[in-house]
Formats: sequence, C-alpha cells, structure tokens
Amino acid sequence: MPAVPNFFQRVQKRDKSKNSLLCVGLDTDQTKLPSHLKDSTDGIIEFNKAIIDSTFDLVCCYKPQIAYYSSQSAEDALIETIRYAQSKGVPVLLDAKRGDIGNTAEQYARELFERYQADAITVNPYMGTDTLEPYLAYEDKGIFILCRTSNPGGVDLQNLKLENGRQVFEHVAHLAAEKWNDRGNVGLVVGATQPAELARVREITGDMSLLVPGVGAQGGDIKALMHAALGKQVIVSSSRGVIYASTGEDFAEAARANAIETRDKINAVRN
Amino acid sequence: MPAVPNFFQRVQKRDKSKNSLLCVGLDTDQTKLPSHLKDSTDGIIEFNKAIIDSTFDLVCCYKPQIAYYSSQSAEDALIETIRYAQSKGVPVLLDAKRGDIGNTAEQYARELFERYQADAITVNPYMGTDTLEPYLAYEDKGIFILCRTSNPGGVDLQNLKLENGRQVFEHVAHLAAEKWNDRGNVGLVVGATQPAELARVREITGDMSLLVPGVGAQGGDIKALMHAALGKQVIVSSSRGVIYASTGEDFAEAARANAIETRDKINAVRN
Repeated sequence: MPAVPNFFQRVQKRDKSKNSLLCVGLDTDQTKLPSHLKDSTDGIIEFNKAIIDSTFDLVCCYKPQIAYYSSQSAEDALIETIRYAQSKGVPVLLDAKRGDIGNTAEQYARELFERYQADAITVNPYMGTDTLEPYLAYEDKGIFILCRTSNPGGVDLQNLKLENGRQVFEHVAHLAAEKWNDRGNVGLVVGATQPAELARVREITGDMSLLVPGVGAQGGDIKALMHAALGKQVIVSSSRGVIYASTGEDFAEAARANAIETRDKINAVRN
Repeated sequence: MPAVPNFFQRVQKRDKSKNSLLCVGLDTDQTKLPSHLKDSTDGIIEFNKAIIDSTFDLVCCYKPQIAYYSSQSAEDALIETIRYAQSKGVPVLLDAKRGDIGNTAEQYARELFERYQADAITVNPYMGTDTLEPYLAYEDKGIFILCRTSNPGGVDLQNLKLENGRQVFEHVAHLAAEKWNDRGNVGLVVGATQPAELARVREITGDMSLLVPGVGAQGGDIKALMHAALGKQVIVSSSRGVIYASTGEDFAEAARANAIETRDKINAVRN
C-alpha cells in the first residue's frame, strides 16, 4: 500500500462522507451546450464548472472523457476542469482507454498522470501486460482496465469462448485479479448493460473495484447491476443522462436533480 | 471505392514512384533530441522538419505516435509536422490506437481526421464493431486495426486459443477481412517480431494492407517479415532506429543513411 491513500481508498472515504457511488461523466460537447454557452470559447469550462458546482456534494468522482476535449482542441479546458473538480475535494478519473507498447505507454502515463494530473484512468488490455506496466507503476492512482464494455460490439472479442471454457473478458478478469493487481491499484470496467457478466466478474475478482458505465443514456438497470456487484466497491457512472438532463439555461439545476435521483436509486439497492 | 484515391492507393502510388515500403515513425521525445534542440520550445518541430527534409524521398508514409506529442503539450507541433509531411507529398498515418463506444469514437474520429487531418490511423478492436464504425465511415482514410502486436505482452490476449481452434488475433483478421472492410479502407497491424503470425494473417486476409512495426529498435527481421508478407502490400515501420540513428548535430544525415539502408534491405527481399 502506498503511503498516501490510493484512488480506491479516497473514493471509499468520499462515499462514506457523501453516501454516493455516483460518478458523473463530463463528456462535454460544445455543440450540445445550452445556446447561451454554445458560442463562447470558454463555453466548455463554464458549463463544466456549473455542473461541478451543482453536483460535487453528490458524487464520489468525476469522469471526463478525453476525446471530447481533444476533438475540440480543448486541452486547457480539460486541465482547468480537472483542477476545479479536485479543488472541491473530488477525485477525477480520466477516461482515455489508452493502450500501446511500453515506450509509448510511458508517454501516455505522462500525459494522463502528469500533464492532466488524473487520479485514475481507463486503459485497454488488448496489447497485454507490458503495455499496462507503465500505468501500474503509479501506485497511488487507479488503473481501470477494460473488461466487458457496455456497447453492443462488446461481444465481438470480449465474449469469445476460449478452449479452456472461459470467455475473453473472464480471462481479463483473472489476469487483473491474479497478475496485474500486485500494487492494489487495479479496477475493471464492466458495463451496466451486462449484469450477468458483471456478476461473473465480481465472482472472479473478489472485492476489486468495478467501474460501471452505461446507466442513464445507455439504459443500464441500476437495480440489476447493484445486485450483481454484491455490495462491494462499485463506481456507477452516468454521463449524458446527468449533464444533458436539460438543454436550457436550467441545465445545472436539472443535472443536480438527475444526479440526486441516480444517487438515490443506487443507494436504495445497496446492501 | 471513393472518388478520391484512398490511403492505400496513395501509398501504392508513392511506392511506385519512390520504390519504398518504408514508413518512418516520428516518435519525437524532447528529452532525446540533440542538445542544440533540447532546450528550444520549437525543438520538436525543428527536429521533425529536419528529419522530413532528409527522408521524404525515401518513404511511403510517416507515422507520428500521438502520445509523444500529447505528453509534451505539443499538439501544435504535431499539426505542423503532419502538414509539413503532407506538403512534401507524403501521406501521414497517425498512430493513436483509439477505441471507445460510438459517441466517443465519433469524437476521436474528429480529433484524428479533422483536427489533425491524418490520412490514416491505428485503432484498437477490443470493444468491437460499433466502436470501429465511426472511423470506417471515412472512406478515403486508412484504418489500421491492431491484430498481432510486436510487444512481448502481445501474447496475453491476442494468442489465446478459442474453442473453434483459432487464436484471438486470427479471429480479428477474419473480422477485418469478412466484416469490417466493406469500404476497402481497412488494414491490420502485425508486428515484425512475429513473422509466422504475419504469414497466418496474410493467409486469412488475402491482399489486405499490413502495417508492420517493430523493425529497427524492436529488432524485427526484415527478410522474414517480407517473406511472410508474400509480396503483397505491406508498410514497414521503423521509428527510433531511424530518427535517433545519431544523437548529435548530424542526426538528419544519420537518419537519412539509416532510412536508405532500411529501405534497401526491404527492397532486396521484395518479390
């Protein structure tokens, strides 16, 4: 265990004080902003700060998706958003799903942990152990490895049946539990749209932290996923459902109302 | 086929006129630059322009790896590098290995094809078909899907044996050939360090274009890989081997010498 609390411990602590497993995804798309913010160059950061101001007491972490910022040349807005969330005491999980050979992964780790100062990230396991190591070396960070994703195409590779009877996503869960988590800083991404598979991952990984996107706009069932998670650490992420709850000037209030509703739905079925 | 020549056709045309299958990887790390460029804020772009000036007549394309730029807050240098290479008539393959759900993939496609105006990209198949579609919709671009990568951990998932006897990377090759390449804009990434597996991918995919990294610093054997590629379209990529051939003021001349040597080694074993 690192001397400073790692990401998972910080999220647990936040959950204790705020009673929330909700992670709000900040997938901020300039074209979807309320009209009074759409034309401002600072629209993204103004929007994000308003969302954070209206939800920070309701969440265990925030999860900006980096593509929304890099597609809009908005690296500075991403940095400012992360710092602002952290200044409110909320850890930030930067959703980037990187994956590349060691030398390059070191550069991505610098990008995510040093430039953006993310508290946790998502990574892609397709290229294997040596491509994960540069991230895992950051002991106090949270490294969420894609396991069974929430999208329809998730089945194409992740559900392939191996000759030993396991499916590929189960193999990833085994590698995560038995090999990649030496430092206690690994979590897995398992979509809310697949509660049976979430239960299987929980079975394999014991009390490993699971990041569960796909409630809200993607339609994942909170009751089913919480049941599958067996009361162990789970971070439930909703992005568009919260931040675009209203497209009008009342977007921040609407986001707060949706965040409260989602948090409460999760809490209603916690063990 | 799109009205304008697609990436693969442009690379073939370039190969015809320059007699080269060599792709030079522009993995430019500020800390590895010659000392007279190391402390300049414009060091990266100055270095890249010098490398391009000294090698553009020897290559079929350039391949900047995006992590090197994003880790150094050097988005502008990446854009300038890509435009400069294109101004010399050389197509640019932006190595980014993205992979995410559809909505997010659309943002990554905007980042890579619109912001950076890449002619081709690399993507990660772990999340499946719907996560590839937003890239594939760009008909005139080249979409290189990771299949069997050059790094040691490549075996961890890619070589898992499925119950139908195939390995995961073979399954990816089948999907690429039979499902993802409707528009003729798909290629596969197969590491030079695995010639037997490259031969297997060639067998599955017919004349699909293969991007083969891993010669140079990673030690892939050019003779073996060219034999495995069966004389069909292959792009052989070397990054550190070329651009860091010398760390002194003669880096551009040394890069040229290494590029000539690598190009000629490839040509010596072409069918």
